[in-house]
Amino acid sequence: MDFENIARKAKLAALAVAGIKTDLKNLALTNIADALEKNKEKIFEANKKDLLDAEKLVESGEISKSIYNRLKLDENKMRDMLQGIRDIVKLDDPVNKKLLIRELDKDLTLYKISCPIGVLGIIFEARPDVIAQISSLAIKSSNAVILKGGKESINTNKIILSIINETLDSIQDFPKNLLQQVFTRDDVAEMLKCDKYINLIIPRGGNKLVKFIKENTKIPVLGHADGICHIFVDETADIDIAANVIIDAKTQYPSACNAVETLLIHDNFAKKGELLERLKSSGIKLDENPDIWAFEHGDITLAYKTVQSLDNAIEHINTYGSGHTDCIITKNQENAEKFMNNVDSAGVYCNVSTRFADGFRYGFGAEVGISTNKTHARGPVGLEGLTIYKYRLIGCGHVVKDYVNGIKHFHHKDLSV
Amino acid sequence: MDFENIARKAKLAALAVAGIKTDLKNLALTNIADALEKNKEKIFEANKKDLLDAEKLVESGEISKSIYNRLKLDENKMRDMLQGIRDIVKLDDPVNKKLLIRELDKDLTLYKISCPIGVLGIIFEARPDVIAQISSLAIKSSNAVILKGGKESINTNKIILSIINETLDSIQDFPKNLLQQVFTRDDVAEMLKCDKYINLIIPRGGNKLVKFIKENTKIPVLGHADGICHIFVDETADIDIAANVIIDAKTQYPSACNAVETLLIHDNFAKKGELLERLKSSGIKLDENPDIWAFEHGDITLAYKTVQSLDNAIEHINTYGSGHTDCIITKNQENAEKFMNNVDSAGVYCNVSTRFADGFRYGFGAEVGISTNKTHARGPVGLEGLTIYKYRLIGCGHVVKDYVNGIKHFHHKDLSV
Repeated sequence: MDFENIARKAKLAALAVAGIKTDLKNLALTNIADALEKNKEKIFEANKKDLLDAEKLVESGEISKSIYNRLKLDENKMRDMLQGIRDIVKLDDPVNKKLLIRELDKDLTLYKISCPIGVLGIIFEARPDVIAQISSLAIKSSNAVILKGGKESINTNKIILSIINETLDSIQDFPKNLLQQVFTRDDVAEMLKCDKYINLIIPRGGNKLVKFIKENTKIPVLGHADGICHIFVDETADIDIAANVIIDAKTQYPSACNAVETLLIHDNFAKKGELLERLKSSGIKLDENPDIWAFEHGDITLAYKTVQSLDNAIEHINTYGSGHTDCIITKNQENAEKFMNNVDSAGVYCNVSTRFADGFRYGFGAEVGISTNKTHARGPVGLEGLTIYKYRLIGCGHVVKDYVNGIKHFHHKDLSV
Repeated sequence: MDFENIARKAKLAALAVAGIKTDLKNLALTNIADALEKNKEKIFEANKKDLLDAEKLVESGEISKSIYNRLKLDENKMRDMLQGIRDIVKLDDPVNKKLLIRELDKDLTLYKISCPIGVLGIIFEARPDVIAQISSLAIKSSNAVILKGGKESINTNKIILSIINETLDSIQDFPKNLLQQVFTRDDVAEMLKCDKYINLIIPRGGNKLVKFIKENTKIPVLGHADGICHIFVDETADIDIAANVIIDAKTQYPSACNAVETLLIHDNFAKKGELLERLKSSGIKLDENPDIWAFEHGDITLAYKTVQSLDNAIEHINTYGSGHTDCIITKNQENAEKFMNNVDSAGVYCNVSTRFADGFRYGFGAEVGISTNKTHARGPVGLEGLTIYKYRLIGCGHVVKDYVNGIKHFHHKDLSV
């Protein structure tokens, strides 16, 4: 089937699913979790096939051992995946929320109501658990999806989506073609061009994938390419807080996008030597004044330099950072305020690890991704990021002429939602 | 000066203006209105020069008489322009609003705070009052702007912006280069490519301009190309409401984007003949089953056709509409609900004129534009549409390791904002 046809069907599914009730969506999600659980041996079997093919690619050096590990779906990952779906059932429906009720005039009432975005294009790499997670988020937020997974997990992706779609087909009144999958590079190229039908692209994968997508589409992209996070140790920093926070931000999970990459230390910070010693003892590899500042190591390497002032630190971060998450360690309230005001990042932290930048830790219950965009959604994005709103205006024959001619007047009275 | 240099300066201005206090912004706006008023004769003079040049272009057929009229800045338009700026002073500051305060754990508090987007690229056509309006909206929302106006109003634009910038320069602590202007087609091409520095493009002008911009940039564009608005007269419609609303929506200001273009009438609506007669008497030119449905007439022509059902009407609108504003005339509550749920437009109306789709009528106090996007902002956009948010997280040495190891637990308690 050609891509445009798939996209057109997705658009129709999106229109059909917009009015689906919360109960029906939750029933679908519960049934999906049950069906995946019941069929888990089939899924493991398909995954074994993918792993066998991948072994050859690891041997020939085409894929890394870490991709191979991410590809593997074991009992633990399966349990987390099923729990993830069941957790989404418990979340508030993000659609049909009244965001504003405003009486414009007598019997003329405006409602701002949250609604789904429409059709999402999801492009993800080796992790096969993403397909179940994204499908569940789409169902809960009443969006249609076209999925393109990594070729390494093709068998696992196929079996998971077919179980999900069989489950949806068995539910009366549930719209068809809500979740569709494509497989080729050509499909990706078509998806990125398809702004007629696709409203939002969400890449789930490495820096290179996200960069490629952002550079090759006019469709809005939700995500981040780089995670160049900074910690600035101010002159009044507490040495213990500084050491603990930096060690956590660098070593707790070094390949995460919210791990710290660059340490800036105020020249007047008296315990600089002691701090660097403690970081080294924790296993961190310090790199003083490297050639490139905007670099995501993804390991325990930490670039660092001394700065002359808070302003210099802010300037460095706004120049070399990626607008993801940056932190100041300080006891000075005024400096903390200035840092958080002037650093132009999705997360601006004071005296805490950058690793907190995460939808679950923020209490969103689910995470669609982390965005460094300056429009729509920024930072960790929950289900709300998959919605927009529409305005309903209900009257009884109201015409604009009466207001232009001064016969009637708006009174703009907000009612409680 | 080359465009990248201008854009870089805009970015620095955006970073500097982010922390500016509300009082200072309001002072700037008041001073700008006063300065423009004081210098209005100079502005009229520059405008006369533009009008003289434009006369020749009207004669040679290069520009239309209506562009010429929009170009003209008279006492009335000047008064409205100044009032517009003073009205923006009275609006709430959209920046630095606490959107969420959540205690993640003891002494670990997350704040979601509204903040400016950064650098806006504004491309507008002949109306010289736009430059004062957009500059004021940008100042109030703490965004930097690069403006590109129509070449027909170049002298008027230059004098207005120079008066505004002289005013800003005279205010101590007000950041430099917040409002810059460019003049050539090459600048537009550079602007559309400049996603490194420009965060949002706002076109203010006709359909062709907006389409061109949307097709030639990866930067988010706020706006709408088409306004193909529909009114559907259901079988239970009140004839008086139907006639009044359609006449208002078509004739009150036919060239507006929220004017109705297509009338759909339910086949079972008994008073169809009477309705069409009343529309004709009002001067509306009815066009039955035209060749093209998705067409914005901009005059008193109204395309119409009979549909067999509510579903057919919804399908027609979702196929040929532009997602702007669409209305059902009905006494049937259930049909109204279905229409407003299933029509995928920014405005879904019941028994009111589509002409209400407007930021001032919605009570936003100012209008940035009307958006048919499915992300960020949809429908009439007020100052809020020029903001995004950032997350502040404040703790005292909190590390993620403690939560992963189960030593500490999130309690996610929302505090009132």
